[in-house]
Amino acid sequence: MESRIYPEFSVQYPLLLTTIMKRPVGLYPNEIGVVYRNPQTGQYFRFTWQEWYDRTCRLAQALKGPLGVLPGQALEPGDRVATMALNHHRHLELYYAVPCLGAVLHPINVRLSPAHIIHTIKHSEDRIIFVDDLLLPLLERIYEDIKDTVKKFVYISDNPALPQTKIEPLYEYETLLKEQSSEFDWPILSEDNYATLCYTTGTTGLPKGCLFTHRQLYLQTLHLAAVTSIINDPAAKYYGENAVPMIITPMFHIHAWGAPFNYVFAANKIVLPGMFTVEGFCELVQTEKVTNTGVVPTILAMIVEYPELGKYDLSSLKSLGVGGGALPLGLKLKAEEKIPGFTATSGYGMTETAPAAVGAFVKKYMSNWPKEKLDEVRVKTGIPAPGLEVQVVDEQGKPVPHNNTTVGQIIIRGPWIMMQYYKEPEKTAEVWYDGWFHTGDVAKVDQEDYIIIADRMSDMIRSGAEMVPTVLLENLTASAEIVLEATDVGVPDPIWGERPMAIVTLVPGAKETEKDLLKYLEAEGVEKGKITKWMLPDFILITEAIPKTSVGKFVKIAIRKSLDDFLSKAKKTSELNRQVTTGA
Amino acid sequence: MESRIYPEFSVQYPLLLTTIMKRPVGLYPNEIGVVYRNPQTGQYFRFTWQEWYDRTCRLAQALKGPLGVLPGQALEPGDRVATMALNHHRHLELYYAVPCLGAVLHPINVRLSPAHIIHTIKHSEDRIIFVDDLLLPLLERIYEDIKDTVKKFVYISDNPALPQTKIEPLYEYETLLKEQSSEFDWPILSEDNYATLCYTTGTTGLPKGCLFTHRQLYLQTLHLAAVTSIINDPAAKYYGENAVPMIITPMFHIHAWGAPFNYVFAANKIVLPGMFTVEGFCELVQTEKVTNTGVVPTILAMIVEYPELGKYDLSSLKSLGVGGGALPLGLKLKAEEKIPGFTATSGYGMTETAPAAVGAFVKKYMSNWPKEKLDEVRVKTGIPAPGLEVQVVDEQGKPVPHNNTTVGQIIIRGPWIMMQYYKEPEKTAEVWYDGWFHTGDVAKVDQEDYIIIADRMSDMIRSGAEMVPTVLLENLTASAEIVLEATDVGVPDPIWGERPMAIVTLVPGAKETEKDLLKYLEAEGVEKGKITKWMLPDFILITEAIPKTSVGKFVKIAIRKSLDDFLSKAKKTSELNRQVTTGA
Repeated sequence: MESRIYPEFSVQYPLLLTTIMKRPVGLYPNEIGVVYRNPQTGQYFRFTWQEWYDRTCRLAQALKGPLGVLPGQALEPGDRVATMALNHHRHLELYYAVPCLGAVLHPINVRLSPAHIIHTIKHSEDRIIFVDDLLLPLLERIYEDIKDTVKKFVYISDNPALPQTKIEPLYEYETLLKEQSSEFDWPILSEDNYATLCYTTGTTGLPKGCLFTHRQLYLQTLHLAAVTSIINDPAAKYYGENAVPMIITPMFHIHAWGAPFNYVFAANKIVLPGMFTVEGFCELVQTEKVTNTGVVPTILAMIVEYPELGKYDLSSLKSLGVGGGALPLGLKLKAEEKIPGFTATSGYGMTETAPAAVGAFVKKYMSNWPKEKLDEVRVKTGIPAPGLEVQVVDEQGKPVPHNNTTVGQIIIRGPWIMMQYYKEPEKTAEVWYDGWFHTGDVAKVDQEDYIIIADRMSDMIRSGAEMVPTVLLENLTASAEIVLEATDVGVPDPIWGERPMAIVTLVPGAKETEKDLLKYLEAEGVEKGKITKWMLPDFILITEAIPKTSVGKFVKIAIRKSLDDFLSKAKKTSELNRQVTTGA
Repeated sequence: MESRIYPEFSVQYPLLLTTIMKRPVGLYPNEIGVVYRNPQTGQYFRFTWQEWYDRTCRLAQALKGPLGVLPGQALEPGDRVATMALNHHRHLELYYAVPCLGAVLHPINVRLSPAHIIHTIKHSEDRIIFVDDLLLPLLERIYEDIKDTVKKFVYISDNPALPQTKIEPLYEYETLLKEQSSEFDWPILSEDNYATLCYTTGTTGLPKGCLFTHRQLYLQTLHLAAVTSIINDPAAKYYGENAVPMIITPMFHIHAWGAPFNYVFAANKIVLPGMFTVEGFCELVQTEKVTNTGVVPTILAMIVEYPELGKYDLSSLKSLGVGGGALPLGLKLKAEEKIPGFTATSGYGMTETAPAAVGAFVKKYMSNWPKEKLDEVRVKTGIPAPGLEVQVVDEQGKPVPHNNTTVGQIIIRGPWIMMQYYKEPEKTAEVWYDGWFHTGDVAKVDQEDYIIIADRMSDMIRSGAEMVPTVLLENLTASAEIVLEATDVGVPDPIWGERPMAIVTLVPGAKETEKDLLKYLEAEGVEKGKITKWMLPDFILITEAIPKTSVGKFVKIAIRKSLDDFLSKAKKTSELNRQVTTGA
């Protein structure tokens, strides 16, 4: 017998999204795997895993055939295929068909400014754009700027008639699929083939492109599943196969926090709401018996304030996690009262980390702690995901002591951290040096080794020789029951260099004033030792809205650009209360 | 700023056992991580993760320094370091220090015959052997044959005085550690560095060597942890961080079913009993509050028959899984009555698969099934572990229909399947061809896609044109309450080619005869449709003991060698019961 070895099927068996894609159809071909509800018409679409897989095969045929998409090689991207799409089954089909074919999926963040969207399309050289009917007007608006870059367009709609539009050539998604066979021979790619290209939100300049390989996304998924089996958080027990997760985080935003990979790997029934509407959310929880989802605080606020909430049966909901921003205490209390399975769990990640990096995992010796104490742990930023190296270091690159005080920069390395910004060696060199990815985020580490985010480096407020721990101040302010949102920025000061200004919105109906808020910060912050007096803001502004990025983060750059305007409306705290000192 | 990329810290961050080793000390430095009880003296040894890690660093220093061990390169093995050791903290230290240094750990299966042990030592070219005090006589016995191969020996004992022996040069483990620093700078290896070398038990010839890389063992661990988070088996919830597992499976036997990697990754408190003794088991469960362990049926029988069992508090035990052989019904009933957390869970693997391959995971739609029905699922061989491709194929390599009837060979490929038998290209070619590893095991697949092992290819009994489903027959026989162990082998037959002979041992005190057993097979097997009449054995022998391998499997080769002897004592079933026919 001729002796041959097969490293590609053993020691070097490639870690591909293809393996994740094929898992549910192999296990549960006839179970409903994907449910989409059109948020405008209320129409439901349900697919068994076999149906969803067949459609994904047809899509791959269409990409390879009529659309002419070409695969890449290891660490050389194939054709970029972009989406301007919400959370539906077709987007989930694209999430697998494109990378498993060897091409690169670029989910366009449609909440960026049109100028930034144009930049990301031209920079990534998207060959095809798949566009939702709802987003066609946006594409039409930027069409002249990108039509020389993009060769083909595909229209996605529950109503298959092609619209009147100047965009061409324009294919129709369902028609393309109908013409293809549902048999597809997926290529055995290198695990170093690039799978996705995601752009940062560009709060400090143009969006930057982060490429991820199959190996990176596979390993992120595996490590997240592994940590779920290990941690003792009671909420974790709802993440098994029988969970019915709803993906609310937009799939165009850093992989929707990993959901499209994690839930297909787990063969969950995946519920997709198109875009978030509060009635759609309630109806889907009731109809599909949704067990868990993750939301940002703004969306949680919309849910708890919804007057019709009591009309729905939300009892299936076992875990509703909150991430992406500080959770105001008033909102937390209201949510716990109104939503059966409410939990707040903090986490930390960024586009460059795909995003899983740090999570507020509960440690083993805490498993008998009362809920109140566990909640305190869950709102810390957290401990590193298994498989990653995460450190908080001083300016010499030395880890800071774990004393809950000394701040430093968070640096990370590990299997799914982005290697470089696409076609941006200078910007790469700003973050990748000395063998570590530098996040630009500032944090301290407590005695139990939990990392607690202090601030973005660029958002730090320097008062004299000291840094104002801005996020601490923001969280303290947000903990007032009357506060809906809170942020702090630095205001130039002739003596101290910079001093903090708090900008705040109140919950609907609240009548409190800047003076009330200052009293709260003194009573809850200074008197209880959470902050020292010099950290109190010099200015407080209660306003109607705070500028935010597409993913709901406060845009401090926008605030700084209009600083005089904000400042002119703000109250000076020294005039609100003569007892307040501002010394450092 | 100079632009540099770091693939080794991002897209190609190596998957190393080093990451697994460092996880518990990073999370829980001051918690007890490893507990060893000397089975002879009853003395306890407890180590915090920091202490265990420091000891492992010292061991690595000793290996690199005085012992002079050299690392290898990707897919080229470093120096082989062998162990002749039981389950204790020092063996667990060797499990990490040797591979994380870049050398290869060869855990010698001390239950092999001396000739086979000599073969594995010479074939792997072991440079050093670490030997337990209890196993020193065995080493002395083979010393003359291996002394030209092995350069150095290290003596492991709780009593540090070096013994009188001809073996030299002989170092002492604890003395070596004391002389070293507990600081060690672990090398960043390639994930394709070989980590372990394990030999098959050699039932059909000389033991064959299976090398595994760091990547392979890391990925096996990750996938096993991931599947635990996904499956809905109630037993799975006990495998979190707070579990206290005892490793009973010998660490010299294919990685003790993955335990030394899985439990360190999960940062469990790991309980090590040296070797299994029933009083040591009971005492450790009571003292350390052990929550789970895995045993073979023989050991389970020793536990349930132990007269002192009732004196111990075993209430912490939440899951006691049984693997490695068919579980007789009588033993199962007794175990359920006597042991609080008893579960029987089947699985399938072999040295070549490291060993995780197939597990009797419960499917999501079964989660509300009654325990009785779930137990039926748990004793099927199972479904593939995530990440592996497993098929049952006919002689043309085509998958057999999932009809619970047609048998074929199990073939496997995936990230942790052995690439080749070490230095045996011909033997490799017998198992690796057409891109698949051929297990040589025969199975059918049921309508729910569960694989059910029928037999080893070489153990198949051919009766006319048909194969007797030997394992089915063995399991049926073992399901009789009076039966302790059962096996079936083929006996030459002038008409049918081969006909089955059943060889059986009874539970202590049972007085039943071959005729009673035949009646049982007819009533429970033929009449209930589990087997057809022609599958009934032509010969039945109730005996005192059945030949077994070092890991408790029946050695059919040994039976066949003494076939006439067995046959002469067996009863011919046609003479026991005239109604039995033997047609095919």
